Amino acid sequence: MSFNKRIKIKKLLENDHIGQDATIMGWVRTKRSNKNVTFIAINDGSTINNYQVVADPALIDEDILKKVTTGACLKINGRIVASQGAGQQAEISASSIEVLGEADTETYPLQPKKHSLEFLREIAHLRIRTNTFGAVFRVRHALAFAVHKYFNDKGFFYIHTPIITSSDAEGAGETFKVTVLDIKNPPLTEEGKINFKEDFFEKETNLTVSGQLEGELAAMGLAEIYTFGPTFRAENSNTARHLAEFWMIEPEMAFYDAQDNQDLAEDFLKFVISYALENCKDDLEFLDKRAAEEETTKKADQRSEMGLIDRLKFVVENEFQRITYTEAIDILRNSNHNKKKKFQYLVESWGVDLQSEHERYLVEKHFNKPVILTDYPKDIKAFYMRQNDDGKTVAAMDILFPGIGEIVGGSQREERLDYLTKRMEEMNIPTEEMWWYLDTRRFGSTPHAGFGLGFERLVLFVTGMGNIRDVIAFPRTPGHAEF
Amino acid sequence: MSFNKRIKIKKLLENDHIGQDATIMGWVRTKRSNKNVTFIAINDGSTINNYQVVADPALIDEDILKKVTTGACLKINGRIVASQGAGQQAEISASSIEVLGEADTETYPLQPKKHSLEFLREIAHLRIRTNTFGAVFRVRHALAFAVHKYFNDKGFFYIHTPIITSSDAEGAGETFKVTVLDIKNPPLTEEGKINFKEDFFEKETNLTVSGQLEGELAAMGLAEIYTFGPTFRAENSNTARHLAEFWMIEPEMAFYDAQDNQDLAEDFLKFVISYALENCKDDLEFLDKRAAEEETTKKADQRSEMGLIDRLKFVVENEFQRITYTEAIDILRNSNHNKKKKFQYLVESWGVDLQSEHERYLVEKHFNKPVILTDYPKDIKAFYMRQNDDGKTVAAMDILFPGIGEIVGGSQREERLDYLTKRMEEMNIPTEEMWWYLDTRRFGSTPHAGFGLGFERLVLFVTGMGNIRDVIAFPRTPGHAEF
Repeated sequence: MSFNKRIKIKKLLENDHIGQDATIMGWVRTKRSNKNVTFIAINDGSTINNYQVVADPALIDEDILKKVTTGACLKINGRIVASQGAGQQAEISASSIEVLGEADTETYPLQPKKHSLEFLREIAHLRIRTNTFGAVFRVRHALAFAVHKYFNDKGFFYIHTPIITSSDAEGAGETFKVTVLDIKNPPLTEEGKINFKEDFFEKETNLTVSGQLEGELAAMGLAEIYTFGPTFRAENSNTARHLAEFWMIEPEMAFYDAQDNQDLAEDFLKFVISYALENCKDDLEFLDKRAAEEETTKKADQRSEMGLIDRLKFVVENEFQRITYTEAIDILRNSNHNKKKKFQYLVESWGVDLQSEHERYLVEKHFNKPVILTDYPKDIKAFYMRQNDDGKTVAAMDILFPGIGEIVGGSQREERLDYLTKRMEEMNIPTEEMWWYLDTRRFGSTPHAGFGLGFERLVLFVTGMGNIRDVIAFPRTPGHAEF
Repeated sequence: MSFNKRIKIKKLLENDHIGQDATIMGWVRTKRSNKNVTFIAINDGSTINNYQVVADPALIDEDILKKVTTGACLKINGRIVASQGAGQQAEISASSIEVLGEADTETYPLQPKKHSLEFLREIAHLRIRTNTFGAVFRVRHALAFAVHKYFNDKGFFYIHTPIITSSDAEGAGETFKVTVLDIKNPPLTEEGKINFKEDFFEKETNLTVSGQLEGELAAMGLAEIYTFGPTFRAENSNTARHLAEFWMIEPEMAFYDAQDNQDLAEDFLKFVISYALENCKDDLEFLDKRAAEEETTKKADQRSEMGLIDRLKFVVENEFQRITYTEAIDILRNSNHNKKKKFQYLVESWGVDLQSEHERYLVEKHFNKPVILTDYPKDIKAFYMRQNDDGKTVAAMDILFPGIGEIVGGSQREERLDYLTKRMEEMNIPTEEMWWYLDTRRFGSTPHAGFGLGFERLVLFVTGMGNIRDVIAFPRTPGHAEF
């Protein structure tokens, strides 16, 4: 006996099913009754839209209808009929209702009223059942699928780079240690140091901060690859933009130079955002309204000029503006914003790193389109970026979006063994430990490039949510590893 | 200036390009010369097939041809012409060759001869450049994409469950600790215990062994979800079938009972394997030959009766045999194998766990088709599996494949709060810590089910490789966390 004979609400809403018998299952959102009839709004997660169930008290037992409360799970058999009420074309006239699981109104936390996002974060195991989070996670899914589809269609290969690693040569930040040693009584060497020879991997290991270096290894055989996996930062940053555990997408391509890299990144971002616009219409319309309501709670000067869907179209429809870091510094230095000291950090000299306020000024005020900033000073960028002929800059790029600033960071990689080893020595990166990385430049090296996209940043941008903790199911932040 | 103006070899081989000018880039596999002409076999990772470059010493400088050695990276401009030689229809007649990166024949480890898989594991950063590993990782990519495509097409949502977790209630095995504490001088409480309040997450955390429990939470809102992420076991198993870090696929579905779960798993496995058969023809033919050669090195009684592609078709074309554990025990107990004591572990009584030899007997000898074994004794299965009415068994299923035994494990989940808490208490699983899991049964519970597939097991099966370390780019096993 198979239980799952239901039709999904998404399917029901796509076509005209009037006159058909159907079974639907889902969770009660609301119920309203008068003495002649009970209306139940059911949601089954397939779409943001509920389906209306009409229950005639003459047919459905009173004891059952009592158990139909917000959050309860129901199985409804009935016939699809044209709806008399406003708001829907069709509804199901119930011939039977089975309560699969009750939800006590006294104790079920998700009652039909507005809950704060902070409160919902504490019950992240239940928030997936709300309209907002249902929409967010359906959009997140669509974006993840779009990532895979984009790269697969272009002939890229998905590589799973390691999560546990013994290399932290990139120095991208604080790492989490991974160990099976007894932390209280670790084995010691004769010199009194911890004897990692007795640990699981017989050396010190940590959680990866990036799959890029391993991705480069794969690109030297498969030419075009991408990663899509979790990465970790043990930084004590309690902000709305930082997670300790987040998912990164990192394509690496042999035979690409800096311009090829920029072309790919722009095309990629436009594809995945277009995909969401096409495939998540209902969810994005809901999130657009939600974001607009949030805006009204902000001060006038902090409000966004564009609505959510407008902002997504803005990215898809505009050619990204490409300028060098040096040009950007000139623009910023000469801006009225800088002269009137409206920036928190004034832009004075070439060589400084840009702040989020500067990035947003370029995107939202000066160019009014997404910006690809290129050719940064080598001293503020990583060792593996290809050095330009000027001796001062590297072939880096950052892509800047309205509202959130940097969404992509990448570069042409330094493929010349002598330049690379010299730069590593200057930056005190141990070349011996990185023999395997250098091997790619020693044998069959080639111009190549790549970039990284923090997936949650993308989901944040596309859903219009304000806090990165609200776009991943179970966020990990300082002090928080629940569920 | 864009560098990437090449045409991929895969594309070149798909159509007739004779007479066209083209640029190809890739790595030298072999070179052979006579005084009139040099033939170079180039591979660019897009396909297992090489492309033949014909270089006329009158056109191409001798110094350049000297640098054309195995592993070197080249850019070739030329015209596609009909080939005179056997083995290919077309080839490129080089007008210019640029050596992008040399590979010194004295030091480059991958010379054109057969290398052992053990040796290649030590240079995992380079093995991706070989025929075998190129094929394996292209097939791996195709399988991963097929997983996403299958679930997306069916309306499932991809959920990223947490990697770092504070819950080890499942008790699925030894876990890796995750910490930022100074292992040598950890902060202590007044009682002299480690003060995890000072750790990053303010409690003890470890790497996840499964995303199932969190997947269930999501299924209670979105109805049909799947995970595809890394999972970890700190087991000291040095076998050809175990990894410390591996990727799992775990669908969880509200409104599915045990039979729905079996239907889905069978359909899913057939889809992804069919997808590989259709999309990886050249790679699978290569791997089929490779596996056949491996077979000849085995003793006669250990050889597989089927070739690789035959084995894949065997799975796709056969209806899986569904039997209960109790039926399987009867079959095994009464088998000639058991009577003649050919099993290492004789099957004597109901209740014992099955060994790999028993699983393979059922699949390869008795039924000669894949087998879904159901309704195991509750005492050898996890606490969350739904109890059957007999009081002895649970609604579990294992799917058994030829050659590798168990490929999928799953069950209908216990959705009844009272049964679940009672079972947890019997098995000493702390119900207080699992309040969030129990909440799903407390509020809006429903019949639901799910299963887990170890992705590397699937890749092992489809590629016919013998060791699981050879189907993931950078394997993590006891003592090994290189690259």
